[in-house]
Amino acid sequence: MNQEKKNLLKQKIQHIDITSFNSIPLIESFSHMSFQSRNLANACKIYDTMLQDKDCTIILSLAGSLFSAGLKKIVHELITNNMVDIIVSTGAIIVDMDFFEALGFKHYVGSPFVNDDELRKLHIDRIYDTFIDEDELQLCDQTIKKIADSLEVRPYSSREFIWEMGKYLDTNGCKVDDSVVYAAYKQNLPIFVPAFSDCSAGFGLLDHQRQRPEKHVTIDSVKDFKELIETVFRSKDTGIFIVGGGVPKNFVQDAVLGGKVNDKGELRNPAQMHKYAIQITLANEYDGALSGSTLKEASSWGKVDQSFEQMVFSEATIVMPLLASYAYYKGNWKKRKAKKLSQIFK
Amino acid sequence: MNQEKKNLLKQKIQHIDITSFNSIPLIESFSHMSFQSRNLANACKIYDTMLQDKDCTIILSLAGSLFSAGLKKIVHELITNNMVDIIVSTGAIIVDMDFFEALGFKHYVGSPFVNDDELRKLHIDRIYDTFIDEDELQLCDQTIKKIADSLEVRPYSSREFIWEMGKYLDTNGCKVDDSVVYAAYKQNLPIFVPAFSDCSAGFGLLDHQRQRPEKHVTIDSVKDFKELIETVFRSKDTGIFIVGGGVPKNFVQDAVLGGKVNDKGELRNPAQMHKYAIQITLANEYDGALSGSTLKEASSWGKVDQSFEQMVFSEATIVMPLLASYAYYKGNWKKRKAKKLSQIFK
Amino acid sequence: MNQEKKNLLKQKIQHIDITSFNSIPLIESFSHMSFQSRNLANACKIYDTMLQDKDCTIILSLAGSLFSAGLKKIVHELITNNMVDIIVSTGAIIVDMDFFEALGFKHYVGSPFVNDDELRKLHIDRIYDTFIDEDELQLCDQTIKKIADSLEVRPYSSREFIWEMGKYLDTNGCKVDDSVVYAAYKQNLPIFVPAFSDCSAGFGLLDHQRQRPEKHVTIDSVKDFKELIETVFRSKDTGIFIVGGGVPKNFVQDAVLGGKVNDKGELRNPAQMHKYAIQITLANEYDGALSGSTLKEASSWGKVDQSFEQMVFSEATIVMPLLASYAYYKGNWKKRKAKKLSQIFK
Amino acid sequence: MNQEKKNLLKQKIQHIDITSFNSIPLIESFSHMSFQSRNLANACKIYDTMLQDKDCTIILSLAGSLFSAGLKKIVHELITNNMVDIIVSTGAIIVDMDFFEALGFKHYVGSPFVNDDELRKLHIDRIYDTFIDEDELQLCDQTIKKIADSLEVRPYSSREFIWEMGKYLDTNGCKVDDSVVYAAYKQNLPIFVPAFSDCSAGFGLLDHQRQRPEKHVTIDSVKDFKELIETVFRSKDTGIFIVGGGVPKNFVQDAVLGGKVNDKGELRNPAQMHKYAIQITLANEYDGALSGSTLKEASSWGKVDQSFEQMVFSEATIVMPLLASYAYYKGNWKKRKAKKLSQIFK
Repeated sequence: MNQEKKNLLKQKIQHIDITSFNSIPLIESFSHMSFQSRNLANACKIYDTMLQDKDCTIILSLAGSLFSAGLKKIVHELITNNMVDIIVSTGAIIVDMDFFEALGFKHYVGSPFVNDDELRKLHIDRIYDTFIDEDELQLCDQTIKKIADSLEVRPYSSREFIWEMGKYLDTNGCKVDDSVVYAAYKQNLPIFVPAFSDCSAGFGLLDHQRQRPEKHVTIDSVKDFKELIETVFRSKDTGIFIVGGGVPKNFVQDAVLGGKVNDKGELRNPAQMHKYAIQITLANEYDGALSGSTLKEASSWGKVDQSFEQMVFSEATIVMPLLASYAYYKGNWKKRKAKKLSQIFK
Repeated sequence: MNQEKKNLLKQKIQHIDITSFNSIPLIESFSHMSFQSRNLANACKIYDTMLQDKDCTIILSLAGSLFSAGLKKIVHELITNNMVDIIVSTGAIIVDMDFFEALGFKHYVGSPFVNDDELRKLHIDRIYDTFIDEDELQLCDQTIKKIADSLEVRPYSSREFIWEMGKYLDTNGCKVDDSVVYAAYKQNLPIFVPAFSDCSAGFGLLDHQRQRPEKHVTIDSVKDFKELIETVFRSKDTGIFIVGGGVPKNFVQDAVLGGKVNDKGELRNPAQMHKYAIQITLANEYDGALSGSTLKEASSWGKVDQSFEQMVFSEATIVMPLLASYAYYKGNWKKRKAKKLSQIFK
Repeated sequence: MNQEKKNLLKQKIQHIDITSFNSIPLIESFSHMSFQSRNLANACKIYDTMLQDKDCTIILSLAGSLFSAGLKKIVHELITNNMVDIIVSTGAIIVDMDFFEALGFKHYVGSPFVNDDELRKLHIDRIYDTFIDEDELQLCDQTIKKIADSLEVRPYSSREFIWEMGKYLDTNGCKVDDSVVYAAYKQNLPIFVPAFSDCSAGFGLLDHQRQRPEKHVTIDSVKDFKELIETVFRSKDTGIFIVGGGVPKNFVQDAVLGGKVNDKGELRNPAQMHKYAIQITLANEYDGALSGSTLKEASSWGKVDQSFEQMVFSEATIVMPLLASYAYYKGNWKKRKAKKLSQIFK
Repeated sequence: MNQEKKNLLKQKIQHIDITSFNSIPLIESFSHMSFQSRNLANACKIYDTMLQDKDCTIILSLAGSLFSAGLKKIVHELITNNMVDIIVSTGAIIVDMDFFEALGFKHYVGSPFVNDDELRKLHIDRIYDTFIDEDELQLCDQTIKKIADSLEVRPYSSREFIWEMGKYLDTNGCKVDDSVVYAAYKQNLPIFVPAFSDCSAGFGLLDHQRQRPEKHVTIDSVKDFKELIETVFRSKDTGIFIVGGGVPKNFVQDAVLGGKVNDKGELRNPAQMHKYAIQITLANEYDGALSGSTLKEASSWGKVDQSFEQMVFSEATIVMPLLASYAYYKGNWKKRKAKKLSQIFK
């Protein structure tokens, strides 16, 4: 690596540790204030209520460049402490960021005030104020290809493929102690990525299929939906914790609708909405797009109950640590057990 | 349908016709102003330049509730006038909105100031200020199932399945004259939906697979990526016209990266970025998420050339008609021919 | 001026002419769509209703860098066609932008992608993508000082001082044919700037007071409020057309509350809210700040009636021309007469 | 008060106490992350650097409904610990919120999901999710009138009038222990409100002037600017801490420009920009309005040095407590003394 590139890739992004500070006093103060501080406090309390509700399966929906920004360790903590049961995410978070770091690569503190043409020449990719070594990212692509090459040829759900990624880390060594993919593998926690080709995994699988035009692994997005609904269907109640919007938000909201019919084609009676729902977002409601659509709107669709729902309009890197720390120090997760929902599919 | 529901579903959404007004004088004025009016004028000119560039394949990326909002006929016009060559979209736009209307169902003028619990009881779904009859939406799901049931059992790309949807309309009758799915079918224009299960199609395909646990149609998201890249690879130059962000934006931006390697595994030399890029969005840059990431940032990744790129920070229902009308009345599309890129895959 | 500066200040901002295009067909189409296009259409219709209502005094509230962006001629057109009766604005719009251009100076097409340290060295001020010659701006300051030096020493409302600015242009020559200050002067239309020192006028008046520490002109902000309320009080009904938020928005909304008590301290009976209200803004509601606060919220304060109110969440340079052109071509202003409300104070 | 109103005005807003939690560990973690968390950490460090710089006068600029939201006690803490030297604010914050509470009135936890017509009938004003008793607010107006009635007839700067409000509290008793107006009075810290009539003070002064049409107190907004510049001029260096945008932001940014000429009309040499600048805002840059204009843009105007500047795009109720707590627990304010800048004018 030349010196100029080395200088730009020097200071590593470090993931925040929610056990290193206790946000309860802050959140308690927020609950007596106005605007988004009070909304955040209310979201904290709803999440804590989910954790106290023994019948509730908790689904975490992730979108945005969260793990390159230092939020990975939070989700790792949520998994290992049984504070989440299912994850639905964009591909970038799970593959380009989490699996990428599990292979030993890093994200770097950068700046938005740079010449992007210069970065490109140095093979440095930019995410707002964060830098990535493009050469390392291509090694990540190739590892995905290697995994695909090793698998039995058949259609896979993204959950199945991500489980294989966890197994790869188990076999070949995981270079970090906060990998979400690896923790989920060990804990039988299902991770779904409904648009699995739309990330580094896409490039690896593409090469896999190109080399094997006749016989190759496929990723069946219907299977994703079927499996997610199956996990929801087996849960008495569900709660959703949404960070960002996009496909993962829609997918987890829809999951209860699909649940209306069971495996035998019988109607589930009564059809149930998500009992709890919180969302952290900066998207606006007024353009009609799904990302900023309110949880009240979702209620018209039969997706979300209005009794326990809260939108928090804020950027995730600031409020997600506060929210997770609150729930961690409240300690109600201690009575929860790992639901190991991936075992359903074995 | 009871009277209360009838009253709420009375006034139909009507799709705007870009040939009914000529935005050129307005856009010319905007080009001498500041802020987003000038950005819009610049985006108009870049799109018109794409249309003049014989070597340029134009990819339209769609996200947000665009077609329920009255923007469907615009895209229909772009297709029939050879102003776009490839479409990448969310599932909701193509299935829940376009195909839904092709089956004879409608969207309705509603209001955001309503009781969502009441709507749910009436089986009315709300998108901000727009209403949908949930019972009709379930008929749409079932039509997807019927199509899947009729197909040869194998993995399909979303493009292939959407082509089958067009064929269904051809056989069974298309109830509207502005269906994007049907126009694309007739014109051999590929439509990709990278998260195909994340919409009404997901419910239909789910039921299809549940009834046929052993032998059923699958949707291979890798195949989507492979096919999109193939179309890009066969184009001398490419331009992207992005409305909203999300998975479609990322997918079309990534398409040039995958193009670096050709079908024989050979490096494409030189690797080429999208030559032109415009985006209409309200997403912010500063939360680091993909939807609001600048086209300059995409340049660091080798995705977008900086010579002809323009972000327009505005809500789509207002500016997309202005942009399309400008290009329509400029008339440079008249020298373009349909690229019929779906024929590659036959 | 050195060559580098000349190159940066070459292309002048040109003000859009709402008579050069007819937005009625576009707005009619928007009224059958969703989201902000429909909101814009509704705002257009409310504004047109104000123009048809003979009893309605129309107050235009302006904030944001509107006139440097090419929106000045619109307001000039509204004044000369009796489409507005009172203006409340930030100082920058009226002094730094309108009066500045009336003195013969210009705004220039610039770019946000520049080195601001370099601009400063060249005495070029930047407003996002627009450039101003700082040396010319200081000449504007000094003209304000000259006007103040010539006046009788007493407290002035901003309206009175702006009338003197119009008189100065009348005497010394107005260099443009679309000056809002000059048109308002000739038409006896009151312009209020509630924070009058917060702009170029502040610098001029500062120098005036510094040179005359004992006897000098003062700007009494209470007098502004008193006069605005007096004009509102004499109007049977009022409608507000708000572009941006800030102090002007609050000031015009408050004007009806002050009107509850008349000059003799008697209660006006019944207390009346603004009958019509529209606002163009990009500010969010959820941070609790006034700029993005809804017109429904204003109704709780007794400021705005909910029967005819509409927020349009959009950037002003794109939608204000559409809105004004619609009302212009509807032609209902033709039956309106100039209210000449400044004459009240003579 | 009837029962319905009593039920709505039950739960009081409580002001957050920054000494009750130590945000240093959180902010340290944020400094190794991305996006707004890192920006916040950087802003914290710049503010702490201001506090360490003995030559730096710190100006706090306030806009938005901050004090009704529970952020008042923070500013009180900043004053009593010599962490701020000058305040520039909207009128609502200082009069309707701070002085209002000093008279013994309260803000209440409310909801945005209410019927505003009902609230109006109950004389309840709404600020997004916060309620105010309109009857109490009118008592606040009348107290302002009473103060004005008692004063010598002459032009006042807002700073002078606000000092009289502090004196009123000193004489008549301040009902709370966290009044910013009262703390500033005792500490000779100047508070400027450049649009002083645009709030509850406007209503009180209006009645004062109406009853005394010939001889009455006036508020000279030029005097505000002159006094602010005088305080800046006497400071070796300045730092600005901006919450929200609007008139206060512009006013404090402009203060260094006015400082270029001293009281004798001599040029200050060298002209100096604000050495430090931080801003918390949710406003966008791309509409060209001042509120969201970057501090880099301000540098082109000669207002802000680029060496120590940071925008934090976030809602204030969440990040202002974190920022203030960080600086409080760093303790560098302990070596600072009260600058007592109001004494300049005695």
